[in-house]
Amino acid sequence: MKQFAVIGLGRFGSSLAKTLYSMGHQVLAVDISHENTQRMMDDVTHCVQADTTDEEVLKSLGLRNFDAVVVSIGQDMQASILTTVLLKEMGVSFVIAKANSALHGKVLERVGADKVVYPERDMGERLAHSLISTNILDYIDISPEYSVMEIAVGERLADKTLGELNLRAKYGVSVMVIKNNDKIQVAPGAGDWVREGDVLVVIGKPAALQKIAL
Amino acid sequence: MKQFAVIGLGRFGSSLAKTLYSMGHQVLAVDISHENTQRMMDDVTHCVQADTTDEEVLKSLGLRNFDAVVVSIGQDMQASILTTVLLKEMGVSFVIAKANSALHGKVLERVGADKVVYPERDMGERLAHSLISTNILDYIDISPEYSVMEIAVGERLADKTLGELNLRAKYGVSVMVIKNNDKIQVAPGAGDWVREGDVLVVIGKPAALQKIAL
Amino acid sequence: MKQFAVIGLGRFGSSLAKTLYSMGHQVLAVDISHENTQRMMDDVTHCVQADTTDEEVLKSLGLRNFDAVVVSIGQDMQASILTTVLLKEMGVSFVIAKANSALHGKVLERVGADKVVYPERDMGERLAHSLISTNILDYIDISPEYSVMEIAVGERLADKTLGELNLRAKYGVSVMVIKNNDKIQVAPGAGDWVREGDVLVVIGKPAALQKIAL
Amino acid sequence: MKQFAVIGLGRFGSSLAKTLYSMGHQVLAVDISHENTQRMMDDVTHCVQADTTDEEVLKSLGLRNFDAVVVSIGQDMQASILTTVLLKEMGVSFVIAKANSALHGKVLERVGADKVVYPERDMGERLAHSLISTNILDYIDISPEYSVMEIAVGERLADKTLGELNLRAKYGVSVMVIKNNDKIQVAPGAGDWVREGDVLVVIGKPAALQKIAL
Amino acid sequence: MKQFAVIGLGRFGSSLAKTLYSMGHQVLAVDISHENTQRMMDDVTHCVQADTTDEEVLKSLGLRNFDAVVVSIGQDMQASILTTVLLKEMGVSFVIAKANSALHGKVLERVGADKVVYPERDMGERLAHSLISTNILDYIDISPEYSVMEIAVGERLADKTLGELNLRAKYGVSVMVIKNNDKIQVAPGAGDWVREGDVLVVIGKPAALQKIAL
Amino acid sequence: MKQFAVIGLGRFGSSLAKTLYSMGHQVLAVDISHENTQRMMDDVTHCVQADTTDEEVLKSLGLRNFDAVVVSIGQDMQASILTTVLLKEMGVSFVIAKANSALHGKVLERVGADKVVYPERDMGERLAHSLISTNILDYIDISPEYSVMEIAVGERLADKTLGELNLRAKYGVSVMVIKNNDKIQVAPGAGDWVREGDVLVVIGKPAALQKIAL
Amino acid sequence: MKQFAVIGLGRFGSSLAKTLYSMGHQVLAVDISHENTQRMMDDVTHCVQADTTDEEVLKSLGLRNFDAVVVSIGQDMQASILTTVLLKEMGVSFVIAKANSALHGKVLERVGADKVVYPERDMGERLAHSLISTNILDYIDISPEYSVMEIAVGERLADKTLGELNLRAKYGVSVMVIKNNDKIQVAPGAGDWVREGDVLVVIGKPAALQKIAL
Amino acid sequence: MKQFAVIGLGRFGSSLAKTLYSMGHQVLAVDISHENTQRMMDDVTHCVQADTTDEEVLKSLGLRNFDAVVVSIGQDMQASILTTVLLKEMGVSFVIAKANSALHGKVLERVGADKVVYPERDMGERLAHSLISTNILDYIDISPEYSVMEIAVGERLADKTLGELNLRAKYGVSVMVIKNNDKIQVAPGAGDWVREGDVLVVIGKPAALQKIAL
Repeated sequence: MKQFAVIGLGRFGSSLAKTLYSMGHQVLAVDISHENTQRMMDDVTHCVQADTTDEEVLKSLGLRNFDAVVVSIGQDMQASILTTVLLKEMGVSFVIAKANSALHGKVLERVGADKVVYPERDMGERLAHSLISTNILDYIDISPEYSVMEIAVGERLADKTLGELNLRAKYGVSVMVIKNNDKIQVAPGAGDWVREGDVLVVIGKPAALQKIAL
Repeated sequence: MKQFAVIGLGRFGSSLAKTLYSMGHQVLAVDISHENTQRMMDDVTHCVQADTTDEEVLKSLGLRNFDAVVVSIGQDMQASILTTVLLKEMGVSFVIAKANSALHGKVLERVGADKVVYPERDMGERLAHSLISTNILDYIDISPEYSVMEIAVGERLADKTLGELNLRAKYGVSVMVIKNNDKIQVAPGAGDWVREGDVLVVIGKPAALQKIAL
Repeated sequence: MKQFAVIGLGRFGSSLAKTLYSMGHQVLAVDISHENTQRMMDDVTHCVQADTTDEEVLKSLGLRNFDAVVVSIGQDMQASILTTVLLKEMGVSFVIAKANSALHGKVLERVGADKVVYPERDMGERLAHSLISTNILDYIDISPEYSVMEIAVGERLADKTLGELNLRAKYGVSVMVIKNNDKIQVAPGAGDWVREGDVLVVIGKPAALQKIAL
Repeated sequence: MKQFAVIGLGRFGSSLAKTLYSMGHQVLAVDISHENTQRMMDDVTHCVQADTTDEEVLKSLGLRNFDAVVVSIGQDMQASILTTVLLKEMGVSFVIAKANSALHGKVLERVGADKVVYPERDMGERLAHSLISTNILDYIDISPEYSVMEIAVGERLADKTLGELNLRAKYGVSVMVIKNNDKIQVAPGAGDWVREGDVLVVIGKPAALQKIAL
Repeated sequence: MKQFAVIGLGRFGSSLAKTLYSMGHQVLAVDISHENTQRMMDDVTHCVQADTTDEEVLKSLGLRNFDAVVVSIGQDMQASILTTVLLKEMGVSFVIAKANSALHGKVLERVGADKVVYPERDMGERLAHSLISTNILDYIDISPEYSVMEIAVGERLADKTLGELNLRAKYGVSVMVIKNNDKIQVAPGAGDWVREGDVLVVIGKPAALQKIAL
Repeated sequence: MKQFAVIGLGRFGSSLAKTLYSMGHQVLAVDISHENTQRMMDDVTHCVQADTTDEEVLKSLGLRNFDAVVVSIGQDMQASILTTVLLKEMGVSFVIAKANSALHGKVLERVGADKVVYPERDMGERLAHSLISTNILDYIDISPEYSVMEIAVGERLADKTLGELNLRAKYGVSVMVIKNNDKIQVAPGAGDWVREGDVLVVIGKPAALQKIAL
Repeated sequence: MKQFAVIGLGRFGSSLAKTLYSMGHQVLAVDISHENTQRMMDDVTHCVQADTTDEEVLKSLGLRNFDAVVVSIGQDMQASILTTVLLKEMGVSFVIAKANSALHGKVLERVGADKVVYPERDMGERLAHSLISTNILDYIDISPEYSVMEIAVGERLADKTLGELNLRAKYGVSVMVIKNNDKIQVAPGAGDWVREGDVLVVIGKPAALQKIAL
Repeated sequence: MKQFAVIGLGRFGSSLAKTLYSMGHQVLAVDISHENTQRMMDDVTHCVQADTTDEEVLKSLGLRNFDAVVVSIGQDMQASILTTVLLKEMGVSFVIAKANSALHGKVLERVGADKVVYPERDMGERLAHSLISTNILDYIDISPEYSVMEIAVGERLADKTLGELNLRAKYGVSVMVIKNNDKIQVAPGAGDWVREGDVLVVIGKPAALQKIAL
């Protein structure tokens, strides 16, 4: 079990805090608004209303030995910056801060944030990929040149074996998982069948993956 | 090339619109604020300032035959609902709407949204997973029982072959990719070496993946 | 005795709640403002200050088995929509919602309202009819082609018997009631006299009724 | 054709103005907000943005010889009072003013309004009556002792002739109209049949009408 | 001893209330603001914070048999009108209301105010008169044709007897009082001396008075 | 003809400016609000919108040789103080400033105002005197010990000659004027009759005047 | 030990109050905001929240015999003026007031402030001087023609004796102090060495000092 | 001649910009408010209204080769931080930033400010020193142990030679300058006279200087 603190309980922060807590970790949730902390009462270990730009207040939370502190303050860029500075001054070893813009992110890095995240920007990019083809369900960028994608099998690919499809030869794409209602088949072989509605987890170059997903 | 419209150019919407445009598609970006549309001028095909809760205005945008219209209005729940209703009334075939809360999502579904997304909630969950172990870089839920994860190799796993690690036998986990600075090796074999700092793409049950990532 | 709830105690809602209560029914009146609920204290069975867009709060009101719940929230369209959705989710069988505009009404229907009313629009129409002739006191549209009207008798119609006036032959209009200070005569005959200042309840085509009322 | 002016284009005022115009009369619509007058442009004869509490401005509208001027200013009680005073000072012969409360109505009468209307209160009362029984569709109060009601025929009354029902003898209630999908029968006779789903227009004492409508 | 109430404790109202109290009368001072009533605590008989547009509240003040009630509400014209109506409805016999403008005054009269005062307008007129000549100290209009003025004696009139000045013959002006540091001489005679710095109370036509005052 | 400037066109200032202008003097009216200056256009010689706390702006008005400048700024105490200082710095010889409170008045004197007036306070005091007896119409304080009053003759004093009333002997009060509908009689004699409804201008000690006015 | 009061605890006022207290004097710190007084609790002798424009409140602070009272109210010019007037009225012998502008300063002097300070203006001037040459660390204007400056020794002056530099002959500048890490040498002689990085306190004409500092 | 830019034209910034310009340097003054830039037009080389948190806008000002850029933004801490970051990103070599608090200063240093100034805090400290004794006119801290002070000569020190006073022996204090109306005497000798009202510039330990200044 690890100890986390989440400062700023907007939609992103509260989802983060709840998930960590539901995975069995200790979570301290902090927000400047009474309403936001009330709402989270039952979903985290402790919930505290506090102005984290006040050094004395922040110190009293005893965050120093937490495994990570996430600053997910949404609207108030100044509060996000000051809280991040104070956390690093206090000796918190791992501070993750949410940025609203590239410039905000640059400031957070300069004042000492160990990691800066851009959730809305990232989700926008993810949705963009899945919109290209309604067959693409999710994806991970492994490198600029390789992605893992989860795609739904349409008519074009259906009712063939992997050997017949021969995706590796044609597109340089490997099928890592075939999933259907009944089971999940990891590392399937050339003789395995692909049916309409199955979901494939594939790996390859982004352009090639787009072609398959059409 | 497909045609998309993005209504609401906050952080999520503008990231979505830019990514779609950079992938070579036609993108119409719409926002009620002049400032937001000005800022996006060079990043999309067309950029229009409009109040999309006004039926006449919305019709004049000619969205009917677009491949998809995304309603990513952030703060104003009412505008998000009214815009979604009007789009479906006008006959737009695929409307995706961003929800701020479960209740908002329920309304969007009832008024006809074809897909409802919760980007901040989803990103919160993703960050939660990666926080559990600083080795986890990203992940996809394939089913409640199977996930794909991208993990950094720490000291514990380093300098062994996949055969020696024998992850499938010990944990039911398959290694699908080994990535390092030099190359990406898809579907590696039992004789391939894993080094500290390599990144593995693995598939397996979430609990098992967590153990490996420690 | 029936059970009603009225949510939103503006001029329309409070008039509704008071009338139902004065007719001997149980009425629960709800509003988000303390001032509005205070004012209604003595005019309904129970009066509660509550934010009905909060699911927990709404459930605690125990509205499930009420005969009807009326959502008469005036200014806040979003609250009106969310409350309506939640009531239907909770299983309330008959939800009537007040709409501010045609678009608002459309949303209310889509999210499940059993009946949508437009009181200000309807009253505007009614007053318009009575303004055409200051003789018209009230009216009911029975169908697009038939209306019932209550009209004051002016000089032109006065001091004749119904037989002499012969309104059915001339205009296709039937006199159903003659009312004066002394008595109300239902289904009057051809020999009954009409005097200046009497009030007639007549039925017929709108255009014909307008002519008589001049 | 008559000449009307409607001052205050909220939901009630704009519905009133539109209906009068659609009935073929000349309508001048006035509001202090540019947005409200823009919206009404095509629905009335003339539409003017003006502050009607300014005597010079009001005079310039030339309302003196209009058949009636309706002051339907919603929120701003002071503007409603001042406009009414000025209209009567200018010699407008028939001024109707919308009141928000009994006290507001009292002031409007004292400052000279020829008629004061309470649309939201009246609509609340109407809806109350129709809620008592879902069979009641609409009603008119003729006197404290007599009402006309429009009721839907339920199972209890269905498939009988008026003679068999004998409503006049049992309840003192007369049936004035039987309406169904096919036709409208005015002043029906004892031999006419009543079917489930028919709509009756009846007249009688309120309490008696309530019993029938159950 | 008389009973007065002053509603509205701005600069005018509080000066009025204090003066009445200092003259030995019973004064009830009322204002909607807590701050204003606090400030007057020691300067009147009773001081009450109350919203006088609320009929119940106003009745509870027991003003019915007061000798006079002054409505000196400054900013909020609507509150001034509603309070005046309610006071007359309750049967207060003498209601004085302060008007901000001619239109406001007209409304106050129509709703029943027994007397309407315009203090700022009147004071403006007074100061105008005294500015014409710095010798004029104060004045009363007795009729459009006669005023009483208090003027300082300048060089031109000084060191003469009233007989020598002969103001009645030259200007139609009578000297009613000669005041200096030592004494006040009422109805002075022709032999009385006028010195520089004396103050005269004179009566006559306004134009004539202006000439003397130069 | 004299030259006046009035800065601040509230109710007091605009009444002052209009009266001076109607008496044939040159009046420059100044206010920071466009609306206020527009309204006064036809009632003064010149009307200027200007921020008089800006030294350059104030200088450009050319007020230096005016006979008097009145600072009648109502709400903004700071603007009233700064304008007064600047006027004296510029060499305006006679500056009159309106004070909202005793403290405000003290500051105005210290910064150089030649005369400070308290119109609302003074009008409150005047109304107080006239309220004591509804017979008192107006009054002037000549000294703490002598006042001139204008009183209406009630039943008690009516239908007697001045000799019979003998007010000087009984109360030390002199009658200076008897006014009725027909004429104004200055310095009336012992044989002159006083009738009900006549108006007397009297002089005497305040307490004595009060007794007569009862 | 002396007694000081500081009214207005902005950045300037709180720095002033803290320094005085740290030098061993009694300091009463006053501000209208609760937040500001809370923050200063431990840094002064007493800390009071009070509205110093209220005469009663101000008197209750007992400031009359304090050695000096500083009015350092920042934003609210009116409060600064009123407080200053009241302090002088109460007989405080030495009142220092902070001015925001030349005009504000003029008013403060006129209402009786014994000393007016312009901290932001003065600091701007100081920084300007030090910016001219990055060698200038601080300076004091002794007269328009003489300044004392603290300058850092750069390459140009380094490794010479004062005699070799001969600044008095060349520039009319005297070196009063040579400071380095080890010691401070007051009134150094011609044989003393100047090294790079030393700090000199010099006196002379401003233009001459600028040249040396280059 | 050097090139400076001052961003933020409050009291501190505008004083700084004016002084630099009056000393013959090129000064670009920048503020987000039109009013502030208008006011400075004639007091600097160029004056620009611009939002310096917008990267494109800031770049267009061409500040890269300026000798120093001062960020003196007063109220908006966020704008001060973002502007500082952007200036350093653009390669400005010397950025001075004004801090409102110690925490603000810490952030400014972390994001790259070359120098952080606290003008209000510093001026507070300076005034504190001069308040201790009304004889102290100004001072410079040379080190924690040595200060230069400018003090007025009171009765106690007057009419003695420096030799008689013997301040160095008694207090360790050196007199560097004697100033009076006629002349300034640098490095005075033991035979020079000190008179009441002369000003001395002295150097020594703070505590000793305090004693002399009493």
